[in-house]
Amino acid sequence: MNRERSQTEPELRRDPFTGRRVWFVPGRIGRPSDWVRTAAPSDAVARDAKDCPFCPGHEDQTPPEIWALRDDPDDPTSWRIRVIPNKYPINEAHELIIETPQHGLDLADLPEEHLALMIEAYKRRFEARAREGRWRTIALFKNHGRGAGATRIHPHAQLIGLPFVPPLLRTELRRAWQAHRRRGRCLYCETLKQELPGGERIVDQNEHFVAWSPYAARMALECWLLPRRHQADFLEISPHEMRALAQLLGYTLRRLKAVLPEWAYAYNFYLHTLPVSAARAHPQQAESYHWHIEIVPRLGRLAGLEWGTGLYVNPVFPEEAARLLREAL
Amino acid sequence: MNRERSQTEPELRRDPFTGRRVWFVPGRIGRPSDWVRTAAPSDAVARDAKDCPFCPGHEDQTPPEIWALRDDPDDPTSWRIRVIPNKYPINEAHELIIETPQHGLDLADLPEEHLALMIEAYKRRFEARAREGRWRTIALFKNHGRGAGATRIHPHAQLIGLPFVPPLLRTELRRAWQAHRRRGRCLYCETLKQELPGGERIVDQNEHFVAWSPYAARMALECWLLPRRHQADFLEISPHEMRALAQLLGYTLRRLKAVLPEWAYAYNFYLHTLPVSAARAHPQQAESYHWHIEIVPRLGRLAGLEWGTGLYVNPVFPEEAARLLREAL
Repeated sequence: MNRERSQTEPELRRDPFTGRRVWFVPGRIGRPSDWVRTAAPSDAVARDAKDCPFCPGHEDQTPPEIWALRDDPDDPTSWRIRVIPNKYPINEAHELIIETPQHGLDLADLPEEHLALMIEAYKRRFEARAREGRWRTIALFKNHGRGAGATRIHPHAQLIGLPFVPPLLRTELRRAWQAHRRRGRCLYCETLKQELPGGERIVDQNEHFVAWSPYAARMALECWLLPRRHQADFLEISPHEMRALAQLLGYTLRRLKAVLPEWAYAYNFYLHTLPVSAARAHPQQAESYHWHIEIVPRLGRLAGLEWGTGLYVNPVFPEEAARLLREAL
Repeated sequence: MNRERSQTEPELRRDPFTGRRVWFVPGRIGRPSDWVRTAAPSDAVARDAKDCPFCPGHEDQTPPEIWALRDDPDDPTSWRIRVIPNKYPINEAHELIIETPQHGLDLADLPEEHLALMIEAYKRRFEARAREGRWRTIALFKNHGRGAGATRIHPHAQLIGLPFVPPLLRTELRRAWQAHRRRGRCLYCETLKQELPGGERIVDQNEHFVAWSPYAARMALECWLLPRRHQADFLEISPHEMRALAQLLGYTLRRLKAVLPEWAYAYNFYLHTLPVSAARAHPQQAESYHWHIEIVPRLGRLAGLEWGTGLYVNPVFPEEAARLLREAL
C-alpha cells in the first residue's frame, strides 16, 4: 500500500487490530538527528550503580527472592536472572525479572544465549502466575530508560497478574474474532502474508519470527515481533522458537539503538497474548488471536495533544521507520 | 457514592464521559511524599533562561509574530502575551501562545488579572483559527514541565487546527448525546448537580466554575474545570466567566503546586470543546456537550503497563485527591 505516492503529506491511518487512529505528520521532524528536540533525557547510568539493589552482592536489599537461575547454588551472587517481588507492588502478583547481573547493560548488549534464558524466565514466571488460578491476564512488560518510565537503570522487566482482561486486549480479541468470522482467517497471519512479499514495512525476520513496523504505528520506530506460525498463546512457544525470538529481539533492539542517539534510546515493550485459560474457555480466541511483542520507542513530546485528543501523532511513517531500522545494521 | 466503604482495596472504575477504565490501586503509593519514586525529573529553569527565544528582547529569534498584547506599541519588548508560529509545526495552524514575559514562572505564579488576559488570548486565537474555515477542531493544550512533555521552560500553550474531529472528542460527543437522549439532560450538568451537594470530589468552586476531581480520574490529582452554566462551546464564554475561569485555574494550579514536591510539579491541560461550527451543523451536540478543561498531573511511571493494556493505573482515589487539593490552601 501507498507505494505510488511519496509520503510527505499528513495522513490519518487506522490500526486494524485496535481501531486506533494515528496521524502521520512527516514534515514535522525530518531526520533522526532532529529527534534531539523531542526525545527523553539521558540516563545517568553510573550515578546509581554503587548502591543498586539489583546488582549481585546486594541480594539482601531486595524483598525475598521468588526465583533465580544460578550457576552455583552455594553462591547467592552467582545468579544470571533473578526474580523478586516489586517493592512498590500494584498487587501481590507484581514481580520484577532482573534480566542480567550487569548494571549498565541493555538487552541490546546481551548475547543471544542470555536473551534465550531470559525469554525462558519470562515464560516460567508467566506459567507460574497463570497456574495460581486467580489472574485473568498476566501482563509482562519492560520500561527501558527514564523517558519510558523506568525508575531503575538496572535491566528488568515487570510481570503482574491482573484480575480482569484489560481494555486493549479486550478490543484486540474482539476485533480479531470479528475479522476471523468475516474472512475465515487470523487477521495477524493474513497481515503477515500480505506484508512479507513487498516487505516495505518488514524490519527483519528469521525462521520463526518477523519484526514488522505496523501500518498505523503509534510512535516513530515502533516495531512488533510476531511468530510466523499461528499461535494465540505465548505459552505455546517452543524451545526453538524461544531461541529465534531471543535472536530477533536482540537484533531489533540493536537496530533501534543504532538509529537513535544514545540519550534518546528509551522504549517500552509489552507482551500481547491470550488471557489465562482462554484457549479452553473461548476456543474462538485461540483460533483468531495471535500473540506478539510490541516495542514502542519513546521519542514523542506532544503529550498534552495526545492526552487531550486520544490521537497519536507520529512523525515517521512505518515504511520509513522500517527502512531506517533495516539499514541500521 | 462509595462513602460507606474505606478506599483501601483496588477498584476498577469506568468513566461515564469516555467509557475508559481506570484501576485504582491505593496501596501502591500511600502518601504524597512517596511520589518521589514515580515522578518526573525536575526542570532546570535557570539553565536555558539566558538564550530563551521566548523572552522579551529575543523577539527576532522566533518566527514572525502572529499576534501580541503590548503595553507600548512602539516597544516590541513590551508585550504581555505573544503568539508565534511553532518552529516545528504539525501543520500551518500550529501556534504557541507565550503566556508571560517572565521566563521562570508558571501559571500558578501569575496574578489573576494576567490569567484573565491569557484566557482572552486563548479565546481570540481560537476564534481566529475557527474563522479560517479549514479546521474541524481547534486543539488548545499546555505541557508544563519536562515530565509532561514540555521542551521549553518558558510558559506557553499550544494551539493547532485539526482537519478532523479527534477520536476522544468524537467519543465524548457520542456518549454525551446518548446520555442526553436517555435522560433528557446534559450528562455534565447532571453530574455537577449530583456531585456538588456531597462535595467529596469537589476541589473548589466560584460563581461560574467548579473544580472537580472526576470519579474515574486517570492520574493522581487530576482535576477538571467545568462551567456551571450549560455551555457546549468554549467560545460562548462571557467576560465575567473568563475572569472566574482565570481565578479558578490559578487557585487550582496553586493547590496542585502546594501538594506536590517542586520537582514533581508537571501537568498537561487540554480544552475539551465542540468542533468548529458544530452548534449550527449538529444542534444536538450543542444541547448535550459541555466544554471543560482537564488538568492532568504527570506523576505516573508504569508506562509499559499502560501502553500495553490501555488501562490507567491511579494510586490516588479522586475523593482523596480532592481532599488533598482542598486542604492544600
